[in-house]
This record gives sequence, C-alpha cells and structure tokens, in this order.
Amino acid sequence: MKPIRKSDFPVSEIRRFIEPGAVVLVSSAHKGERNIMTLGWHMVMEFMPSLVGCLISSDNHSFGLIRRSKECVINVPTVDLAATVARIGNCSGADTDKFAQFKLTAEAAEEVKAPLIAECHASLECKLHDDRLVDDYNLFIFEVVKAHAPQRPKYPKTIHYRGEGIFMVSGRSLNLRRHFRPGMR
Amino acid sequence: MKPIRKSDFPVSEIRRFIEPGAVVLVSSAHKGERNIMTLGWHMVMEFMPSLVGCLISSDNHSFGLIRRSKECVINVPTVDLAATVARIGNCSGADTDKFAQFKLTAEAAEEVKAPLIAECHASLECKLHDDRLVDDYNLFIFEVVKAHAPQRPKYPKTIHYRGEGIFMVSGRSLNLRRHFRPGMR
Repeated sequence: MKPIRKSDFPVSEIRRFIEPGAVVLVSSAHKGERNIMTLGWHMVMEFMPSLVGCLISSDNHSFGLIRRSKECVINVPTVDLAATVARIGNCSGADTDKFAQFKLTAEAAEEVKAPLIAECHASLECKLHDDRLVDDYNLFIFEVVKAHAPQRPKYPKTIHYRGEGIFMVSGRSLNLRRHFRPGMR
Repeated sequence: MKPIRKSDFPVSEIRRFIEPGAVVLVSSAHKGERNIMTLGWHMVMEFMPSLVGCLISSDNHSFGLIRRSKECVINVPTVDLAATVARIGNCSGADTDKFAQFKLTAEAAEEVKAPLIAECHASLECKLHDDRLVDDYNLFIFEVVKAHAPQRPKYPKTIHYRGEGIFMVSGRSLNLRRHFRPGMR
C-alpha cells in the first residue's frame, strides 16, 4: 500500500468520511510514544465547529495517550487495508510499535502532534473539545481542526464493521437529490 | 413495501444494525402525537447495558416528542425504503402525519409507547438513559430495552448517507475472523 497524496479538505464537510460509518484508524502520540487503534464507534456531532464523538474504551493503550495529549488523528482506511485494520485492532500498543509492525507511514500533522497515517484515504486532525463524558462512557468529543483528503475518488471504498469478525465493504451510490429540499442536504 | 415479520433479538447484539452506520428512522410518540425522523448521526456506546448515542437536532419536530416522552424506537430501513427515508427527512411532523403520508405501518412496541415501523428490517425500543449533553449538543444517550429483527437476512441491504443527497448502499461482506483474537470480535 502506497502513501496517498492529499490536499486540504474543508473541516465542515468531513461528514462525507465519517457519517457512512466506516471503521477508522485513530493515531495518537504523547511524550515520545505513538500508537494506532481501530475504532468503529464514532459519530458526526456538528458541522461547525466540526465535531466528532468517539467511544474509546479505557482498555485501549491509546486511551491514555489521547487523554493526556488531548489530541488524535482520525484516519479513514480503504478496503485495501482491511486485514491491517483487523490486525491493528487485535494487538496492543503497549508492546508493539504498530507503525513499524504494519509498515505504515507516520507523517507530521499540522495542528497536532499525533501523526497522520499516509496510507489512509483521509486524515482528520483532532483536538479534544469536551471530555465531560469520558469518565462515565469513555466518550471523547473532538473538534476536527484540519482535514486532508485526495481530490479523488470522491467516495473511497471503505469498510464497516458488522461484529463477529465480519466487515461490510461500501457499495454503490444512490442519488436521491430530487427528494431533498434546498439547504437540507 | 410489506411489513416484515420479526422475532426477539438480543439487545446486547444490536451493534450488527447500528455500527456499520446506516441511516435510521426514529419513531416517537407523546400525548396522542406521533412522528418519524431520518437520522444519520448515531453510534454504539456500550454492549450491556445496550447504549446508543443519537444526535437529534432541536430543529426537528421529533426533538420535543422524544425529550418529553423520554422514549423512541430506532428503526433500520433497507434500500427498498430509500426514497421514503429521504422524503421523511425533508418534511416536518409539525404539519404531516408521516405514517399516513408514507403508508408506513405503526405497530405497538412492548416497552415504550413510541410505535415500531413494521416495514423496517429491525426495530430497537429505546428509553432515555442520559440527557446530560442534550442542552449543549442535542446528544441523547438511549438504552435499547427491547429489539426486534427477522431471522434472515442476517445482513440487510442498508443505506448510508454521504451528504449532498447521495447515499451509499451496503456492499459485500468480508470475513476477517482469522485476524481476530478470541473474545475480540
């Protein structure tokens, strides 16, 4: 898998990558340590500021790195990375440098210290916006402060987790614009 | 579209329907009024209790019904209902009985007063579990207290919103069980 050349992408439009529900890779860094985790529990929460909620279990090694650094990068992998995504979700950053282990390229972000994963389709630099529900639910509300995506394809072939080791690969597009009122898309 | 015959489904396993990120129809009822809204911003938050977070904008007529009744039903539609899903998202329950308008069948739920939508693949009866972030973010955390789904198909053909009037139809399954550690699925 080669690094993907990206451009700046408007943070107010990142629903395109998050709302369909793809599994993402969350990268983080703190005091010289870095890690990657696989995450399926996330949601768009607001266009502007661009907010994304992520459920990051405190069992994950990444939990501490993200809580202490108050930052992360949400990377959107495509189906070519499916096996890697599954394997990343089944080992721990406590004893593995996952960038090295899975031959992924860590690129410097602009607004956060957490690295971008160059092989992913899109990367969203995030700062912690609200941690009120972290203690009770492990719910982090992030603001996307900078986004990177290639010009095309507009809709990458993403993978979506169904449980029990089974993923769904994103399928065809369905244009239903004719049913939308202006300003309602 | 015909009503779908369903059986009880374990509430701890509803990730199957929510985690891949499909657009859902949320039905609600309060004091003789009922409504349906289209929702794309949701996430699994816990297996047991079975928690789902939903971002329900206060602009929606359903917001008041759900806030006051503290209940709703999350219904998972399939691609056959795609045009209906889009149209439901583009009109208001303030001046429309959407069950009548879109010829959908309201069935009595068991644990809540909000109706099930019989034409949907799965229906999750929900009670409000935590409303702490409703004022600031319109974030409702629901507990799924009863779930209904047909025996098959195991994976319904769902629709996922990409923005701009474009939906993605769920595609093929990818079995990556071989990469999972026991207990990690």
